[in-house]
Amino acid sequence: MDSINNLSGGVTAASGFQAGVATAGIKNIQKKDIALIYSTVPAVAAGVFTTNTVKAAPLLVTMQRISKGKAQAIVVNSGNANACNGDQGISDAREMTAAAARALGIPEELVLVASTGVIGQKLPMDKVLPGVLEAAGAISPAGGAMAAEAIMTTDTFPKEAVCQIEINGKVVTIGGMAKGAGMMHPNMATMLCFITTDAAIDVADLARALKRAVEQSFNMVTVDHDTSTNDMLVALANGLAGNKKIVGESKAFQLFQDSLTDVCTSLAMDIARDGEGATKLIQVEVRNALSILDARRAARAVAGSNLVKAAVFGRDANWGRIICAAGYSGSNFDPNLVDIFLGDEQVASNGCSLNFSEERALEFLNSDTVRIILDFKMGEAGAVAWGCDLTYDYVRINAEYRS
Amino acid sequence: MDSINNLSGGVTAASGFQAGVATAGIKNIQKKDIALIYSTVPAVAAGVFTTNTVKAAPLLVTMQRISKGKAQAIVVNSGNANACNGDQGISDAREMTAAAARALGIPEELVLVASTGVIGQKLPMDKVLPGVLEAAGAISPAGGAMAAEAIMTTDTFPKEAVCQIEINGKVVTIGGMAKGAGMMHPNMATMLCFITTDAAIDVADLARALKRAVEQSFNMVTVDHDTSTNDMLVALANGLAGNKKIVGESKAFQLFQDSLTDVCTSLAMDIARDGEGATKLIQVEVRNALSILDARRAARAVAGSNLVKAAVFGRDANWGRIICAAGYSGSNFDPNLVDIFLGDEQVASNGCSLNFSEERALEFLNSDTVRIILDFKMGEAGAVAWGCDLTYDYVRINAEYRS
Repeated sequence: MDSINNLSGGVTAASGFQAGVATAGIKNIQKKDIALIYSTVPAVAAGVFTTNTVKAAPLLVTMQRISKGKAQAIVVNSGNANACNGDQGISDAREMTAAAARALGIPEELVLVASTGVIGQKLPMDKVLPGVLEAAGAISPAGGAMAAEAIMTTDTFPKEAVCQIEINGKVVTIGGMAKGAGMMHPNMATMLCFITTDAAIDVADLARALKRAVEQSFNMVTVDHDTSTNDMLVALANGLAGNKKIVGESKAFQLFQDSLTDVCTSLAMDIARDGEGATKLIQVEVRNALSILDARRAARAVAGSNLVKAAVFGRDANWGRIICAAGYSGSNFDPNLVDIFLGDEQVASNGCSLNFSEERALEFLNSDTVRIILDFKMGEAGAVAWGCDLTYDYVRINAEYRS
Repeated sequence: MDSINNLSGGVTAASGFQAGVATAGIKNIQKKDIALIYSTVPAVAAGVFTTNTVKAAPLLVTMQRISKGKAQAIVVNSGNANACNGDQGISDAREMTAAAARALGIPEELVLVASTGVIGQKLPMDKVLPGVLEAAGAISPAGGAMAAEAIMTTDTFPKEAVCQIEINGKVVTIGGMAKGAGMMHPNMATMLCFITTDAAIDVADLARALKRAVEQSFNMVTVDHDTSTNDMLVALANGLAGNKKIVGESKAFQLFQDSLTDVCTSLAMDIARDGEGATKLIQVEVRNALSILDARRAARAVAGSNLVKAAVFGRDANWGRIICAAGYSGSNFDPNLVDIFLGDEQVASNGCSLNFSEERALEFLNSDTVRIILDFKMGEAGAVAWGCDLTYDYVRINAEYRS
């Protein structure tokens, strides 16, 4: 992540973006649980949403509004997913946006909404609505870090990333925040991610860049195999950087695309690192596959295998589970050609065991980031996926979550 | 499983079948680790094999031989999967069958072979070959129960089932044994299953019956999301019952089909119940789906969801995770119609929460078999899937397995 500068500010790093938070007491604990992101001018907006058939109410509201391509604010709550609440859920989600719109003095249609938390419980609107007003009263250009905290559920640390590029002599900033932790799987997990940029760009180009960025970042993260009802990634671009509009397949677009991918990748890796109960980040690289799809399938399957994840937790150089996971992934490869590495230590050659150094393999398994590399030696495509180890704490957290 | 009679004998229950075992010390522990199944006459043979691209050597040997439709013996070892061992693995697997064939005085081509255990380590042939000879010397019509023990790895109990039916006045017996425990997922898990029957039936009809039985039984079991390199289900039918040959879509075929499905279902449920670290069997029923495929997809996704499994372990009536898993399964249904029950307690109606009795839900969650029912209210198709809870012990077992 060399291109991620050491910048702070998250969703308020880019010009014209502000954020405010409130502690509404949604889950009966004293934790920031409402965040409001606001752009001083209307922004173009694009989003990516869960593929789950069961979609939470705020997604339905946001998907409908974002189809117009414009937004000026996003109101978010943690502690309750507002999913499986029927018509009441929809009207509650709308009421959240109406309250934010009134407080900010902008049209309701320009307010998007997101929720994360327990499924199947009604939103406590008597707490949520005052919280939204409080958050709106607290917005400031310095609010990004607090907003990143307010959207956390079982996350153990807030996730932010910022990147700056120069386009035609103007500095363009891309900032973002995310929450993850559990119920994470490719094709969007229980993940909320908000990206804000002051770039001038049309909505179609923003949407295209976002889709490509997500494919290489969030869709390559897996914590468990559960794809949530509430996943949402929304990007707002308000144009205040004053750059010449980024268009088509220009060099400027490529630069913007790369930086957006970097921001998303940084946030996605943070999500994997902070998977529920995780002690290690697992990074799986597939090299020399026949196609990107083959590489991605295999990388994701290895990163997502419960048996690989448990072996990493146990610091066991059990490479058989790695090739086995690649084998059931649907990826097209020849098992008799595969080389496997744990960090820099090669543990299998042409699909067979090597007499490798268990000691050196253990060194790599002991590091915070465990790198697993599969070389298919068939083509030129590659992919990287991220996951985390499977631990006693994952079980504990998820056996107790609702209680 | 009413139709499973209280019969014993497993793979040696049917006429003409014998089994022998040996303790070869493959994994350096004193446990039976070689099993040999033998039919006094050549039998027709059909099999179902892992869909994993990476197939262990014994599978490759067995798949090739079974394509001829005939077999007379099966030699099996536990403690080592003989997977990812290249050409050496193939020649070792063949040598196992050659040793068994010599000892039994039958053609090598009629001996099938299976292995289960750690991937990527060479078979210790100096221990395996004497073990095969010892097992061949020990075969007897009473050997079924010991064979079921010999194929266990992390299983905590042996799995056997026997069923008897009458066809044209002749008693036909179908017996079976299986091993499961970890690396279990639909489309065959790390599962070995051997079915023996004295029915007279052609190989094509046996294969057809077996395929249907597997779809409703083993392919509806999930312990984790890992599909192994070694899964194999082989059925031998030696004709010694003396029944009129079971053919086509006759009533006799239907009876045979149902009984075979019962034997497979009983073994599959035992595998789920004995999932690594499991304390509970989870049975998921989907009712009134648009198609069998929709019902199966949803049932399997719910039974396989880490979050549902952890919630069952924690005895948490977190039905949101149930509908969420159905939602990402690819099953076609309307979330706003779904009713959900835990045992007899309805917890959701039309996709929304009910004010259900947590106390009564807890009673059902406390039982050894936790029944989850989803009523889609859309069509007439149904399916049942089985899984187990996700526990601290699953993590412990799989973090330590190879060591």
